Amino acid sequence: MKVRVLVRLKPGIMDVQGAAVKRALAGLGFSEIAELRIGKVIELELDETTPDARARVREMCGQLLANPILEDFTIETVTDLAPREVAR
Amino acid sequence: MKVRVLVRLKPGIMDVQGAAVKRALAGLGFSEIAELRIGKVIELELDETTPDARARVREMCGQLLANPILEDFTIETVTDLAPREVAR
Repeated sequence: MKVRVLVRLKPGIMDVQGAAVKRALAGLGFSEIAELRIGKVIELELDETTPDARARVREMCGQLLANPILEDFTIETVTDLAPREVAR
Repeated sequence: MKVRVLVRLKPGIMDVQGAAVKRALAGLGFSEIAELRIGKVIELELDETTPDARARVREMCGQLLANPILEDFTIETVTDLAPREVAR
């Protein structure tokens, strides 16, 4: 079973990395960006037998994957983690 | 317009960070993980007037956001970047 976790800074928290990338893109001529924020994506492949996988992943986030002070996380179940429209 | 870019190491590339996190989770009792890989998520808010936003974001990936030697990227258009099922 494939699960995707998105970990992002909470809305009120200054995203220094995102601000730097936004400015760098503006310097390259991409001035249409109103906002840019950077987070982590963690893609997990769980054993098929895992009962209540989503709850288990939520526990993992609480214990290790996300910092509850600064970050929010979202858990998505994906049918196939290999992206359909991929650029290599 | 909101766009989400997922940047991940290409399948053949060793993901050291992911391997470390997988082992740490196993140490915490989460032994059901078959694979774990870590990437970046970049969430962009573009001006509504941007013509062909997806192509513009693809250009941004080529010029700055992704390393074409090591990384793949996926562009997703999302109706709302604020996650529906969020844990704070």
